[in-house]
Parts: sequence; C-alpha cells; structure tokens
Amino acid sequence: MPVPPHNLYPPFNVVRLSHVELDVTDLARSRAFYVDTLGLQVTHEDGDVIALRGLEERSHHCLVLRRSGAAAANALGFRVYDEPDLDKAHDWLAGHGLPVAWVERPWQGRTLATRDPQGIPLEFHARMDALAPIHQHYKLYRGVRPLRIDHFNCFTRDVDASVAFYNAIGFRVTEYTEDEETKRLWAAWMHRKGGVHDLAFTNGRGPRLHHVAFWAPTPLAIIDLLDLMSTTGWLANIERGPGRHGISNAFFLYVRDPDGHRIELYCSDYLTVDPDLEPIKWDLKDPQRQTLWGAPAPRSWFEEGSLFKGVEVGEATLSALPIVAP
Amino acid sequence: MPVPPHNLYPPFNVVRLSHVELDVTDLARSRAFYVDTLGLQVTHEDGDVIALRGLEERSHHCLVLRRSGAAAANALGFRVYDEPDLDKAHDWLAGHGLPVAWVERPWQGRTLATRDPQGIPLEFHARMDALAPIHQHYKLYRGVRPLRIDHFNCFTRDVDASVAFYNAIGFRVTEYTEDEETKRLWAAWMHRKGGVHDLAFTNGRGPRLHHVAFWAPTPLAIIDLLDLMSTTGWLANIERGPGRHGISNAFFLYVRDPDGHRIELYCSDYLTVDPDLEPIKWDLKDPQRQTLWGAPAPRSWFEEGSLFKGVEVGEATLSALPIVAP
Amino acid sequence: MPVPPHNLYPPFNVVRLSHVELDVTDLARSRAFYVDTLGLQVTHEDGDVIALRGLEERSHHCLVLRRSGAAAANALGFRVYDEPDLDKAHDWLAGHGLPVAWVERPWQGRTLATRDPQGIPLEFHARMDALAPIHQHYKLYRGVRPLRIDHFNCFTRDVDASVAFYNAIGFRVTEYTEDEETKRLWAAWMHRKGGVHDLAFTNGRGPRLHHVAFWAPTPLAIIDLLDLMSTTGWLANIERGPGRHGISNAFFLYVRDPDGHRIELYCSDYLTVDPDLEPIKWDLKDPQRQTLWGAPAPRSWFEEGSLFKGVEVGEATLSALPIVAP
Amino acid sequence: MPVPPHNLYPPFNVVRLSHVELDVTDLARSRAFYVDTLGLQVTHEDGDVIALRGLEERSHHCLVLRRSGAAAANALGFRVYDEPDLDKAHDWLAGHGLPVAWVERPWQGRTLATRDPQGIPLEFHARMDALAPIHQHYKLYRGVRPLRIDHFNCFTRDVDASVAFYNAIGFRVTEYTEDEETKRLWAAWMHRKGGVHDLAFTNGRGPRLHHVAFWAPTPLAIIDLLDLMSTTGWLANIERGPGRHGISNAFFLYVRDPDGHRIELYCSDYLTVDPDLEPIKWDLKDPQRQTLWGAPAPRSWFEEGSLFKGVEVGEATLSALPIVAP
Repeated sequence: MPVPPHNLYPPFNVVRLSHVELDVTDLARSRAFYVDTLGLQVTHEDGDVIALRGLEERSHHCLVLRRSGAAAANALGFRVYDEPDLDKAHDWLAGHGLPVAWVERPWQGRTLATRDPQGIPLEFHARMDALAPIHQHYKLYRGVRPLRIDHFNCFTRDVDASVAFYNAIGFRVTEYTEDEETKRLWAAWMHRKGGVHDLAFTNGRGPRLHHVAFWAPTPLAIIDLLDLMSTTGWLANIERGPGRHGISNAFFLYVRDPDGHRIELYCSDYLTVDPDLEPIKWDLKDPQRQTLWGAPAPRSWFEEGSLFKGVEVGEATLSALPIVAP
Repeated sequence: MPVPPHNLYPPFNVVRLSHVELDVTDLARSRAFYVDTLGLQVTHEDGDVIALRGLEERSHHCLVLRRSGAAAANALGFRVYDEPDLDKAHDWLAGHGLPVAWVERPWQGRTLATRDPQGIPLEFHARMDALAPIHQHYKLYRGVRPLRIDHFNCFTRDVDASVAFYNAIGFRVTEYTEDEETKRLWAAWMHRKGGVHDLAFTNGRGPRLHHVAFWAPTPLAIIDLLDLMSTTGWLANIERGPGRHGISNAFFLYVRDPDGHRIELYCSDYLTVDPDLEPIKWDLKDPQRQTLWGAPAPRSWFEEGSLFKGVEVGEATLSALPIVAP
Repeated sequence: MPVPPHNLYPPFNVVRLSHVELDVTDLARSRAFYVDTLGLQVTHEDGDVIALRGLEERSHHCLVLRRSGAAAANALGFRVYDEPDLDKAHDWLAGHGLPVAWVERPWQGRTLATRDPQGIPLEFHARMDALAPIHQHYKLYRGVRPLRIDHFNCFTRDVDASVAFYNAIGFRVTEYTEDEETKRLWAAWMHRKGGVHDLAFTNGRGPRLHHVAFWAPTPLAIIDLLDLMSTTGWLANIERGPGRHGISNAFFLYVRDPDGHRIELYCSDYLTVDPDLEPIKWDLKDPQRQTLWGAPAPRSWFEEGSLFKGVEVGEATLSALPIVAP
Repeated sequence: MPVPPHNLYPPFNVVRLSHVELDVTDLARSRAFYVDTLGLQVTHEDGDVIALRGLEERSHHCLVLRRSGAAAANALGFRVYDEPDLDKAHDWLAGHGLPVAWVERPWQGRTLATRDPQGIPLEFHARMDALAPIHQHYKLYRGVRPLRIDHFNCFTRDVDASVAFYNAIGFRVTEYTEDEETKRLWAAWMHRKGGVHDLAFTNGRGPRLHHVAFWAPTPLAIIDLLDLMSTTGWLANIERGPGRHGISNAFFLYVRDPDGHRIELYCSDYLTVDPDLEPIKWDLKDPQRQTLWGAPAPRSWFEEGSLFKGVEVGEATLSALPIVAP
C-alpha cells in the first residue's frame, strides 16, 4: 500500500500534539527525573499529580504525571484549532464508528475522548489555560533545557492502517520506511504543526507508546544532559544515543524514566509546512535510517514500550526483520 | 490603536514567506557573498540571474539575484496553500481596491502580483518547482549553513496600518513595540508559518526593505560566519551583532551584501502555532527589546534599507525617538 | 625596543598564574555575582572571606574575595614549580633590588611577597592545599561553567619595562602590539603555562589591574552567561562582547563585578609550549587586533581598572592613540 | 606496583609529542581521508609523501603519510626543549642500554632515533621548520577543524614497565586503571605538555599503536565530522563514539583511516601543569572509565591496532578481562 496523498482539506483542524498523562509509581522519583534532571517546569503539584511545561510553552501542561499503582500511558492529547473543530471531530469520529465522549480535564476547555482504530486513547481540546511566558527567565534553564513537547511515537500492529486513519484527519507523512518485499509500511512519521512529526508509528506489538519527545535547544544541551545523568545516578536510564537520525535528520538521545517510560530529547529537524512536500522513503534494510552515523539501537529500544491503560495489546501483522541490521 | 485580535478565518491561506528577488549591480561579487560566504546553494545560474536555496529547502528558490544597474528589492514572494487560495486572494485584494495582475515567473506556477496599501510589491503563488533534498548532503554545508529563509522585515510609514492589512489576511502579531504615549505601534512581528514572524514592520521612511533573514542551525554557525567574514575581506559588511534579540528571543547577526542589502542570520525563536497565543508587548524605551544583552544597534541599522524598485518612499507618520536608548 | 628573545633558562621556574585576592565592599553581593551567576565553586566561606575555585581546579582557590571598606586588588599570586624555586626567586628578586618578604597565607605553603618594578604586588608559592576533583560532578555546573583561572591583564605605565622584567623571569611574549612610529610596545601577552598568556600588559595609567580571566568550556557557555546576566539583574554589568579577539584568537566576554572589578570569560586560544614559537605582531591601528569582527570596545574598557591596594598610580609614558579606531 | 611518583627533575626535557609517520597503501585515498574529510592542512606533497599540520600548528608537520606496500606506523616523534636536551637524551638512553642513532629527517633539525624498552620506535628533535600561522585563515577550516595533534595511545605488553620508563624521562601519570586483584596497571595516561596525556598505554598484544589523536575545537565540530563522514562514503570508518570519556573527561570520536590506522578526535580535557597533581585512579570494572555515559566500545576497539614497522609483537603479560563490562 503506497503512502496516501496529503489530505489537504481534513474534516477538522488539528493544530499539534499537546500533552500526555503518564501513570507513575513513585511521584517523587519521577519528579527527580523530569524536573530536577530533564529540567521541565512545574505548573501544578499536589500529592497525586504533577503538571509540567517546557521553557517556551505557555499552555499549562505538556506532561502530566499521575501517581498510580502501575505504570501506564493515558490518552495522547491533541489541540484543535477552534471550538467548532471539536464538534466537527465529534461528528466525524462518531460517523466512522469510533467511540466519542466529552470528558472533564482540569486546566482545559471542552475535551473530546476517543480511541483510534487500533485502540490508542486520544483526547482533543481547543483551549488550555495560558501561563505567563518564561522563555526569557534564563535562571530556570537547567538539565536539557526542554523547550516544548515535540512528538509521540507509538507501536502499532498495522502501520498502513494507522497511517490511513491519521491521514484521513489531516496528518501528513513526511518520511517512511517500507518493506521492499511486501510494499507495506514499516514505520511512518506524520505531522500537523510543521515539523517532521507530531506522531510516528512503528510496526510492533501494539498499540503501545514507544516514546514522548521534547525539543532541546542544541545538540550541546543534549550532551549536557548525558553528563548530568551519568554523574547523578541516572546512568542506567540512558538507553540510546546520542546520534543523528537518518529519518528526520534530528539529533537525538533516548532515556528511560523511573518507570521505564521512554523519553526522547530531540532537536534540529526541518520545516514541513509546504503542502506539497514529498515524503522521503527509506529502505528497511538501510541502517542509516535510524542512525545516520551507523550505530545500532539496543534490543530494548525495538521491543519495549509503555502500555496504554486499559488497552489490549496484540501482535504486529507484519513480521519483524532481524532487529540489528548487519 | 491596540494590536488587532488574531483573525482566525482569513480570506485566503498564506502558508509562509517564500522568496525575494534582489537587484544587484555586480553579480559575481554577490555570488561571492551569498554562495561562497553565506553558503546558499545555487539552483540556477546564467549571465543575469542566480537562484538560490537553503540547505533544507526543496523549493527551487528563496532568493533570486538579478543583475541590474541599480540595487533594489523586487516583490516579496509568499506561498499560498492551494490553487483556489490564489483565486480567493485575487478577488479579495481586488475587492479591497488593490492592484492585481497575473504574472509569469520561472519555476513557479500561477503568480498573482499586487501591492500592499503602503506600496510594498507582493507576489503570491501556490506551486514552485521541487528539487531533490540536500539537507543530508553535508559536504555542501559551509559558511553559516543557511537552512531556509525565515522572514522579511520592512520599514513602513505607518505600522498600525500595515499590521491592520496583514492581520486581515491572516498574519498574526506575536510581539510588538508600542509607543507608550501615543499608544501607536512602533514595530510588530507577524507570522503565518508557526515561528515568531514571516514579516515584521518598523516605523520609518518607507516602504523599504529592512532585511531578509535566513535560519542558521545554531549560534555557533553564526560565530563561524563572523570568523569567516572577518578574515576573507568582508569585515566592513558586518553591521550588528552577534546578540540575542529581546523580541523573538532569537540569536542574530546582521550583515550587508555588496549592494548594501541587509541580511540577518537568525536562529532559536519559538513555536507559535497555537491560535490563542498572546502577543508580547515591549516598551519602546526598553533597550533589551532589541538586544537582550543591552548592546545598542548602530545608526545605520536604524536608518538604512533597500528601496523597492519603482516604489515611492515617504516619511514615517510617527516621529522617531532618539535612536540609541540611554 | 623589540620584543626580547625567549629566555629559555630563567632564574626560577614559574608554573602558572595561581590566584588573586580582591577586596570587595559587599561580600553577599559579590557572592551573588561570582558564585550564583558566574558559577565559581566555594571552597571556604566565613564572614570576611570567600575562597573560590573553578570546576576543573583542585587547588584550593583561584579567587579570594575579602570584605573591605574599599574595592581593590591585592597581590597577584603565582605558583612556582618546587620549593627550591621559591628560594631562587627570593635571591634573584632581592639581587635585583626588589622587596622580598615571606608571608603567611592560609591554605598555601611558604609564600614570597614582592613587587615588580612598576609596583605590582606579587606573591609566589609552591604548594597549595589540594581538594578532591569535581570536574565530573556535573550537577555543580552552572553560569558560565568556569573551569579555571586563565590570566591577569594589567595596565602599566611602561609596557617595554614590564615585558623586560617578566621576560627575565621566564615569561615569553606570544603576541604584541607595537606603535609603528616609536617602535615601543603598546601591549603584550606573556605566558608560562602553555596558553597565550598568564599575564598581559597594556599601556595606561598604572599599575592597575585591568581584568582577571576565567576559562569557559565553549562560546555557548559564554552566550548562556549573557542570557542569564541579562535576565537576573546584571545587565548593566555586561561591558564588552561577546566577540573573538584578534590577539589570542579567543572568544571573549567582559563583565564587571559589583565593585567594578573586570572579569573576562575566555575560551579557545592556542597551545604555546614550543620554546621557539614566534610572537605575533599586531599594528596598533588595526582594529581587528582587539575584536576580529571589528566591533569597537567601549571607552570604559580602555580607561577603567582596579587599583592595587596601597600602590600609587602614575600616567603612562607613551601617550594614547585615539581610543576608538576610525 | 603503584603509580610511580612524579619525576620532577628528569634527565632531559621533552616538551610534547610532535608527530608520527604512517605508512599507507593508497596515498590518494589517505589524502581524501585526512585532508578532504578530517581537514588537516597539507604542508608538503609529492608522489611518495604528504606532510600535514593542524590549523593552529606552526611546526611543519604533525602527521606524515608515506606511500608503502603495507600499512604500518613508523617512529613516534617527540620534541625536546633545546639542543642540549638532545645530547642529554642520547647519553641517558645509551646509558640505559637502549639503541641510539642520529638520523636525517626533512624539515627537522638533528633527530635522535631510539626504541623504548618494549620496542616502540621513538625519535626526538629540538627544531622543526616553522610555517606562518594559519589559525585565523578561517576559510581553511573544514571537516573536524583539527587544531593540533594531541596524543598517542599504544598497546603494550606490560603497562607497569612502560609507565616506569616514561616516568623516568619525565612523563607523569594523570589517570590510570588498576586491576584490583593483582594491583598491576591496566592502562595509564601520561603527559608532558600540560594536558591529560601526550602518551597513553593499554595492556594488550604489543607494542602496537592504538591511535593518534587530534584536538578539535568543540564537540559540535566532532558532530559535524560524523555528519560528513556518514554522507560521503566513510560510514564504515566510524568506529566508536561520539561520547565522553570518564578518564580525561574529554569528548571523543574514533574513526579508522583507509588502512585501518585509528584516529581519535578529542576535545575538552583539563590543564595538568601543577607538578603535584594527584593521578586519578579508575577501577577496571567501572564501565564509565571508558565512556562516562555507559556505552560499551566495540570489540575492534579493544583488539585492533597498527603495527610498528619492523617491530615484533608479543602477548600481554596481564590476561584480559572480558572485553565488554556487564
């Protein structure tokens, strides 16, 4: 199945990914990771919940940590352009047989909950509380100096099906990996906000959340984080990198939070606002698609991911290549 | 006059600034500046014209140099989302009493020429020839490693009027400087593509082009350019910087091309896709609005700019403050 | 007078500059500057004295702040190779008519106090208390991440005379500025430790301390300091830069402490251990000698400096050029 | 055997490592690697030999490539302080039963050839032709922007014996790895010029040259080299990194030249001129000693090295740990 053409006039207007809520088993330890080490900024904190934003974000939260007995990912949050888009989303999703419900979320306006056809829980909203800018409060900059949330990456049992759904609601593929034999998609990167992706999918047991990425100012900030984590007790949480991706051309590092949720620190991809930008195709056998410099990813990176709370997981429909390219 | 509210549903959809054509008096010398020194990539070259793109751009040109007897700026080019947007633009502009004409431009689809109410020549198109990606051809990276065109900045006789016009066609103010006494705008930064600006206006004799900006990968690339220009005969072409802007929070350098056209090298502003992002207001008396670190700009930076070919210039309607803040 | 040839076999072996003690009028405010803002590490603190080191230094102090009723610089501290060098220094200095005295200094071994022929107070020692390394305690890194003291720069009434003295004790000129007409030295950079300088002299009212410099890891750390100082109340303390020096090729920034003592943040000069390295000569009329990129220094930078406590100041013997080159 | 104390008064004064000559089998291909890719500067070139220097070096060569039928390393070159040091070296080495011979080398003064007790060929000289500075000719900067040679690293059959010899001639250990059980040295870093090392030894089949290192200006220059090599046909020549060493705290990358000679790009270690600096001890079982961030080195890095021409190789006297720490 080829990559579908860019859907220029989607049924409702998604602006960008917005936030995710992660269930964590030790809130204090997660705080030490996300706040003291990565450098996200606390916007709300109580005994059960910590809400966080990046240094250039004015919306209330891009990450919510919730104390729980078991680690899990909750819904992926997306922002739509305006209130009418919420209603259009409601009707379109319901019309396509997907579950829809209006839910209450603190610091947000009306929120529409649904699941994508693979079962990934999604929530859409048009308004979130705005906070005063802090991007020029440089005394707050620490850790990797995370500026903003950049993207979600999910395992899906069927990348072709996931791409078809998100393409229908206006996400456009910027880069993809194809299995040369079956001509089926192995992985795809899809955007709304004008970068390489808001959302990516990889073939695998799914649906699961592979990682959440935050934008860092420069590769040097990511090197600083490596130095800090290596010397403050977080050495074992460094999983992969630093490196440059072939796909996206971004500089990256993957780390794991105390519950194993995977976080990517990411910078330097490219602008994709032109509606006719051609997607870039990569061969599944090309090891440079993952790391331009050739270093393989560890096995954990291919296999592990966060469960979505209450969502059943199944095997991929496309069988895996040997994980590490020769 | 306060900053107008974001026009959420403009009459046609401008995606981003696209390119500008500059008349230059010595094409070889301009090539030495833009190609050999800044590092833009040649996509077409003949005895009269050199077309250039940035390292991540796939559209044919972001800058066109045209051999001429006198230095000037020609039309500012913008890209609209789709072909129907061109027709909507034609009708809306004509309906507002502005001149409209379909013109032929090489490497572009249908192109609509007009002038804004202050006389700035504009051209809109929906399609430009796409070239193969070169952003991972790292052997091509040199100079400041310019990735893409970022914005235009113009002198206008009446910033309030310019902002009103561009706001009407969907440009949204992200930051602005207000004269505290008259409550009139002194300068404003307006975007379409999701950064701080595609287009900015400053009060002054106008209309004139103040500068064209290109996005650089990091502040270190800009420092590299300073080292290169300082030791290859371009010392006198360095005008202002390096520094960090208060407005936009970007790291910057201003240089002048062989004809005096001003070029900014720019990186590290912030994402502005949220439709309800509040504009940031700066006081005209705050020297940090221009350079966060406090260094004043030279007089030339306040006074000099490129003429638009064939466009008459007039005095600003708002009288100037002393140029250099105490 | 030409630059004297490198004195290959000096009478005693100075290893490097070591530290300086500055009298400050508000110890808490100075602490906010040096510790909280620049990022030096406290090794001792009481009501009267704060001792500081850089992040890679294992010697007890490179800077001592002493509470006083008036701002001043005390002796410039240098380290000699071994105990016998102290005795050789004592005898050589006494033999050349300079005052010598053994003084007690905390955290140091035997310390020899003297004054150079222009009156600058100097102290030599061979041993200082060693502390455990902290260069891999990355959680301590903040501000400009100062790694070590790099050099002193002094105004002297007679650069030729100062160079002659320090050359006699083994300091070697790496770069210098000559007045083309009189063939007298205007400024000179002299080293022991293998960089461009441990000690530099500029023609002017003297002797006075022009600045103390600390080595920063990269130009980006210096940019970070500018962002931090600009947004935490230290804007007025930024004096000059950032820029690249012509002389030394280093990236620099000059800031002023709360008492006006000038501090340079400095990185990226070059190795000078080869004993036959030819000094580089600069023309006093070449503005690139100071800033490769051409930006002039402010008047304060040329005129102001810290007094050495109890040392009389006199006019320069060589009259000044106009400060700002045309 | 403990690390020997710093020999403060060695029999002759070695200033620094100077250069190495490598036999290469395809001079054009090696030129493409060292000149076009790494960015070293050619100072001499004929059909048989290419001489190279770094961008801040004024000595004629730090690397000589010689066309040969088989890849090999020739003598390691060191510079002594002055002509009398050459004679002292001659006598001391002869007196310790080592072979000594005066040899002719182009662009150098008198050159003394010897072998260390493990058989490594060494050459000492006091003078090399000086060339004009190019460190401010920024148009020459390309590739990793190599500034200067930094160190040699060799496999030796007996690290304790190698350290004892070099300590006797004034090299001082800055960091070392000890086998906790036998208390024997596994690896040691020794310097003369004031950085972490001019020369390092690792236990293994030897003597062999493990790598030659060049100093890069910043980690970003090393990232640039990775991007360049990955996209210009040198992907397979990237062996290990980027990363930060625990030992030395330097940022590093290892690449292989067309004949397999290993080159390290290296920056950001620390100043070691203080004669009483305590060596830092690392546990052989600590994986952070090699990479602070925890990533293991590939097997090739532990096993492969360049033969010294005409020198027999033997097994290490200390048996190896499992190569990759758990």
